[in-house]
Amino acid sequence: MILDFKRADDGLDKAARNTRIEAMRAELVGQQQTIRDARLPVVVLLEGWDCAGKGNLIRELICEMDPRFFKVASFGRTPEYEERYPFLKKFFDVLPETGKFLFMDTGWMEDTVGKYLRREISREEYERRIESCNTLERQLRDNGYVLVKLFLHISREEQLRRITDLRENRDTQWRVSGDDLWQQQEYNQFMRTYDEFMEATSQTAPWHVLDGESRKKALFDGLAAITGTVRQAIALGRYEGKPTGRQFPLRGGPSLADCDLSATIDPDKYKKKLAQLQRRLSELHNQIYRKKIPVVICFEGWDAAGKGGNIRRLAYPLDPRGFDVIPIASPTPGEKARHFLWRFWTKLPRSGHIAIFDRTWYGRVMVERIEGFCSENDWKRAYGEINEFEKELTDWGTVVLKFWINIDPDTQLERFEARQNTPGKEWKITDEDWRNRDKWPQYAEAIEEMLQKTSTEYAPWYIIESVDKKYARIRTLQIVTDALEKAVQENVVRGIKSAPAEKKEK
Amino acid sequence: MILDFKRADDGLDKAARNTRIEAMRAELVGQQQTIRDARLPVVVLLEGWDCAGKGNLIRELICEMDPRFFKVASFGRTPEYEERYPFLKKFFDVLPETGKFLFMDTGWMEDTVGKYLRREISREEYERRIESCNTLERQLRDNGYVLVKLFLHISREEQLRRITDLRENRDTQWRVSGDDLWQQQEYNQFMRTYDEFMEATSQTAPWHVLDGESRKKALFDGLAAITGTVRQAIALGRYEGKPTGRQFPLRGGPSLADCDLSATIDPDKYKKKLAQLQRRLSELHNQIYRKKIPVVICFEGWDAAGKGGNIRRLAYPLDPRGFDVIPIASPTPGEKARHFLWRFWTKLPRSGHIAIFDRTWYGRVMVERIEGFCSENDWKRAYGEINEFEKELTDWGTVVLKFWINIDPDTQLERFEARQNTPGKEWKITDEDWRNRDKWPQYAEAIEEMLQKTSTEYAPWYIIESVDKKYARIRTLQIVTDALEKAVQENVVRGIKSAPAEKKEK
Repeated sequence: MILDFKRADDGLDKAARNTRIEAMRAELVGQQQTIRDARLPVVVLLEGWDCAGKGNLIRELICEMDPRFFKVASFGRTPEYEERYPFLKKFFDVLPETGKFLFMDTGWMEDTVGKYLRREISREEYERRIESCNTLERQLRDNGYVLVKLFLHISREEQLRRITDLRENRDTQWRVSGDDLWQQQEYNQFMRTYDEFMEATSQTAPWHVLDGESRKKALFDGLAAITGTVRQAIALGRYEGKPTGRQFPLRGGPSLADCDLSATIDPDKYKKKLAQLQRRLSELHNQIYRKKIPVVICFEGWDAAGKGGNIRRLAYPLDPRGFDVIPIASPTPGEKARHFLWRFWTKLPRSGHIAIFDRTWYGRVMVERIEGFCSENDWKRAYGEINEFEKELTDWGTVVLKFWINIDPDTQLERFEARQNTPGKEWKITDEDWRNRDKWPQYAEAIEEMLQKTSTEYAPWYIIESVDKKYARIRTLQIVTDALEKAVQENVVRGIKSAPAEKKEK
Repeated sequence: MILDFKRADDGLDKAARNTRIEAMRAELVGQQQTIRDARLPVVVLLEGWDCAGKGNLIRELICEMDPRFFKVASFGRTPEYEERYPFLKKFFDVLPETGKFLFMDTGWMEDTVGKYLRREISREEYERRIESCNTLERQLRDNGYVLVKLFLHISREEQLRRITDLRENRDTQWRVSGDDLWQQQEYNQFMRTYDEFMEATSQTAPWHVLDGESRKKALFDGLAAITGTVRQAIALGRYEGKPTGRQFPLRGGPSLADCDLSATIDPDKYKKKLAQLQRRLSELHNQIYRKKIPVVICFEGWDAAGKGGNIRRLAYPLDPRGFDVIPIASPTPGEKARHFLWRFWTKLPRSGHIAIFDRTWYGRVMVERIEGFCSENDWKRAYGEINEFEKELTDWGTVVLKFWINIDPDTQLERFEARQNTPGKEWKITDEDWRNRDKWPQYAEAIEEMLQKTSTEYAPWYIIESVDKKYARIRTLQIVTDALEKAVQENVVRGIKSAPAEKKEK
């Protein structure tokens, strides 16, 4: 057991310990500068028992640091509106950029163990979450994050003493919650489960158990763990993970080569079908809103393939209060300085809402790959990371649909020229579009690889024939309505079970 | 009465109206480009009766638009966590940047009238909010925003018909809330109060009342109002408001000239006093957390005056879960493209929390003025806008404290040189610091004007003598603890009365 540790005497007297604490604090202050130069983001995760003194420890850790280069994020009981997102989202939300420290006052451990022992999630969901936590930690490490995990440990007797003290003082009694009392009562079960969780999540970064019964010793060991890990990370340089071998249930992605671009639809039939599908989609939007099913629809495609018009036909019947179209451009500096999926995690739809992404995270394995905006390791690793990301979404009950809007080079040329010659549309065609066009073969290769490696059973790719844009719109609408229909019928939504009922929104 | 309008026939037949609707939609699509070139942000505020069809109207307005250049923000019943901020914050949060449209599905009108008629705020608070809404609208206009205000009107009978229809359909019955039924019952009172609100808020931008009983006519008139207003704004160019004449209760700001920089404190006394004040601050932090008092502490001062060390002494005794130090650097492009206070509104502390700003919104009247980063109108207008901003905060119950950390030029020179010669501290001194130093007289002039014009009774300035940094720390801590002590004693917190009780956070 990790937690069953003997309190050892490190042989330091008070003065010697204080001297070394001051020295490590000074080192930590200096590391704020060196991690900037080394482009390292550092996440310090502090978990531990209720009333163990986590807040106080963080206060002592940060007290000499420059507030421009660190943040503290506190996760207590998850607020209701956060329960409407996959549970990892709130941790992605606070990820620091390169060169910054983040101190987390509890995180994915308490969120998982606490919810499980308070009977808010099932054993099955608990085990799935452990795997998600491992995925998160590995993804952070592979993307250059330095992760320090601390657990502040106190005994059952000590916890009881502290609870009693807090309750005896009028100014502090509010600090003791029912959750704290529950943990005190169920201490042994928490102990076993904390331990189990820590053993199950020790692959990527080790847990450092701190002795919460001595403030100074906890501070000393906490500082040692942080400065030591950071020192080593600086010496080694920014880590860049290799692609992992984890397998996903692929369904043999579709191929551009198999796409019959001659498909068309009769204009009259189009009109009728469009109205019918839009009416149906409008009804379904009502139902997925009531059943709190989140929906993510991804649009990728060649320039001028007709993405915009397709999206507008899809969006038109939707209630504007229940969906967002999210246009994705090149990442801002703040986005580039974080995990490449950060800007997508932070834009996920709430349960019952629809997010339509106009371009997506697949930019990583297309434009970023081809233009060299990321390293080969980065884009090769991204297939797996994207599959994991989409797995988190679908495990939580999200319907994920991915469309590649397809045309051939001749059609693109026609449309580019038409745009250039149409007043009011010239701005839509840029030099970059022409440059991308020259790279058609490289893109085609990247797209084929993407389709093969990321068309999973839970989040399949659809190639949409869009030489006839009308045909493309009908086909997209049909796939979306079918998928939503199925989701509404099945309504087996795993993660959402535990989400609280939504209050009526107007 | 604004709402007591006769339904007039505009003499258009169906075909003619449809043709003009299409023409206006096309114009609106084109305006997405022209507002980009003209650097105009556009806010379309849609208010109106429950069940009037606001969602549908927005859907019809945006259906041809390019999602890259607009957003829809829906405000239903304010979620609990938003009630922990001044009521205008949520509207500032969603402000568009220049070149973008924002469509608001209800906003400050419903938030004010609805809360008042549902007895959630008092008459006094209601009247204060009307004034705040006027301030908001004027500030938006003065800072270049184009504001279009629409009200979707239906009769009591029509509302009843729609409620009945919705309730008869299993898929839509959930859309009818208790609030809707209450409004139907109290229709006449809502009518009077809506009208009163509209009359009271017609100075900056007129209200356009749309006939919600005819979808096409409402769409037609809505499109006409939006495209017409935007067309005119483009013709006139970006508006830049003159400083307004509104008076604030100034208390005769302190002056740098009166500051006695020779003040010092004995090191032993310092140690004792520091420990004592920090202990007291720690207790007070508990109390303001429990009493849900929000606190904003502003630090400004000469480079090397000792802001950082001062802030660290202040922050040390605080629980890291209940405060944030917010360092303010130069604005990002996204921040520059919005109202200059946007980046501060979005960073306000929740009730019961403390935000310590390391540099503030006063950059507008110091560095931005001196370096010409904004126009003369902009910085001259900012004194009033800042006073209004801080009035919103204090009206809502926030304790606002503003410190100017003061030294003389010789002391600055000494400290600059010491930094430059201390390994590990060189990075703290930059060419820009030296350039700013050369502009000491211009800064001194700007600071004096700032102190005179923004030292209000509700948010006073304090000049802190910081040649002896220890003295400065004690003085700041003393002022903060005294102010919090007073706030905790008085506990007359206006806006917060109506905020829901906070659940325990761990």
